[in-house]
Amino acid sequence: MGELKLIEKFRAGAPGHPWLTVGPGQDCAILNWPADRDQAFKIDQVQEGTHFVLSGPGAATPYQVGWKAMAKTCSDIAAAGCWPVAATVAVNLRAGSPDALALEIYDGLCACCRRYGFALAGGDLSVSPGGLSVVVSMLGEGPRGKAWLRRGAVPGDVLLVTGTLGASRGRKHLTFEPRLEQSCRIRTLAPDGIHACIDITDGLSRDLHHLCAESNCGALINAEKIPYSPEARAVADAGGRSALTQALEDGEDFELLLAVSPESAAELVRQWQDPVALTEVGRILSKTEGLVVADATGRRQPLPDVGWEHR
Amino acid sequence: MGELKLIEKFRAGAPGHPWLTVGPGQDCAILNWPADRDQAFKIDQVQEGTHFVLSGPGAATPYQVGWKAMAKTCSDIAAAGCWPVAATVAVNLRAGSPDALALEIYDGLCACCRRYGFALAGGDLSVSPGGLSVVVSMLGEGPRGKAWLRRGAVPGDVLLVTGTLGASRGRKHLTFEPRLEQSCRIRTLAPDGIHACIDITDGLSRDLHHLCAESNCGALINAEKIPYSPEARAVADAGGRSALTQALEDGEDFELLLAVSPESAAELVRQWQDPVALTEVGRILSKTEGLVVADATGRRQPLPDVGWEHR
Repeated sequence: MGELKLIEKFRAGAPGHPWLTVGPGQDCAILNWPADRDQAFKIDQVQEGTHFVLSGPGAATPYQVGWKAMAKTCSDIAAAGCWPVAATVAVNLRAGSPDALALEIYDGLCACCRRYGFALAGGDLSVSPGGLSVVVSMLGEGPRGKAWLRRGAVPGDVLLVTGTLGASRGRKHLTFEPRLEQSCRIRTLAPDGIHACIDITDGLSRDLHHLCAESNCGALINAEKIPYSPEARAVADAGGRSALTQALEDGEDFELLLAVSPESAAELVRQWQDPVALTEVGRILSKTEGLVVADATGRRQPLPDVGWEHR
Repeated sequence: MGELKLIEKFRAGAPGHPWLTVGPGQDCAILNWPADRDQAFKIDQVQEGTHFVLSGPGAATPYQVGWKAMAKTCSDIAAAGCWPVAATVAVNLRAGSPDALALEIYDGLCACCRRYGFALAGGDLSVSPGGLSVVVSMLGEGPRGKAWLRRGAVPGDVLLVTGTLGASRGRKHLTFEPRLEQSCRIRTLAPDGIHACIDITDGLSRDLHHLCAESNCGALINAEKIPYSPEARAVADAGGRSALTQALEDGEDFELLLAVSPESAAELVRQWQDPVALTEVGRILSKTEGLVVADATGRRQPLPDVGWEHR
């Protein structure tokens, strides 16, 4: 149908937002941002061959490629304790790709926008000899000065994790829901108790290392408390890697890992009503105590800084 | 040096901005946006093989790839009559690329940030089998409700263009200065006289078609008034395509095309003091008069909707 026609179609169907005063079709989108709300700004990407494949085992549909690109950026917005307002998207198609591919990717992108009520504010479509890629840039909003960061965790904080971990790359990494609703619920229940947060993209181990590096602290993970996914248990039961290794190293779980004051953590767990679990998996230690994982008997081992290098 | 080490280096050297309260290294950057300023939001990309090549005739240096990616996004911000505040960048490296390549791209990106005083707020680094790509997302600021759009031109408006046109893809497309300073000067001299604006990326012809489609009008270009670049004249003198064809169709000039009220246009041209020229090249017609180009004798020909399909 030609690239310009495709772009016209994209513009016509793009979801909006009340703060977006000028949407797609101009050199820039224009937003009118309320004075009392902070702005979270993020860019993320999915690249063919690294974050998805289009054929063979585990192949993604084009719709899933669009969904994943948008949802993984939402995951970062959720980890900042914010809510998405507007996204822009840069898609690169392999030369000769059919129009249907671009349209399906677009449907996946827009489905995520609609699911969480934010705008597709603009985009750029390119065709090059390289593989398919989708880059999403997103603006999220939250209360002034209250964004959750990786820094701020202190010894004694409880480590909470949403959902289940491990073996995400079976299927979940293409279809997951970003933890926006859980992030919002957590902020409501514990407005001042969240000391630090990160979304689990490289695996629990490496992402905890990131959080501890930024917060200048150590941490303890209780292996038997980790909410392993049924898929991770199935892999282990079939003689594959242990569920613990999968949870620590696999990555792309897109769950939230939070360091929470003990009082707020107790309150959160007590009041938690959500189909997605919120589980205590450990606590923050001092930096000198290091990063360790304890088994059911309490025996500690160092937690290695390894994970999926999907960059 | 390893991807995580590279990322650390990138974070340490990233230019800041007073409105950026949390910079790189977190799940999101955080901005504190003043209530009285509108926000322009844009994403743009450069893809190896389409927007640059790394070897052979016309090869770009990695520094130029970074500069071009940042500067072309700045060009869109300039076309909205805004000034950049913060950018995020997604880089995809071809597997096996040396660290030096990434570092040089980064230097080119940061040079543009520093040149125009805006922040590199965050980024994502990926390695995939495809080619090198750099995607830039940018936030710009301008007075509330005053962003320049492609729509708003009315018959009688004067068409002004910055700089010179044609043969940009010889070299200029890798080294150009985005017309931010000129955009700012134009707004200052004619705060309410700019009815529409677009940056010339596809060529004067196609971009004028874009502007006229959005503004529901026609336009006349005076061929002999077009400020042809010396390179375009040299190509023509050597027996290549005419300077007019190059200016109309080559694309990637990254100059501004503005539809301006006759009074403001006269004032702008009278008061203009800038090393970059501001030239009257035509005027806006009614839609029924269509889009035409006139030669020195006044003879009109239709202006075809053709240009560089670099998407």
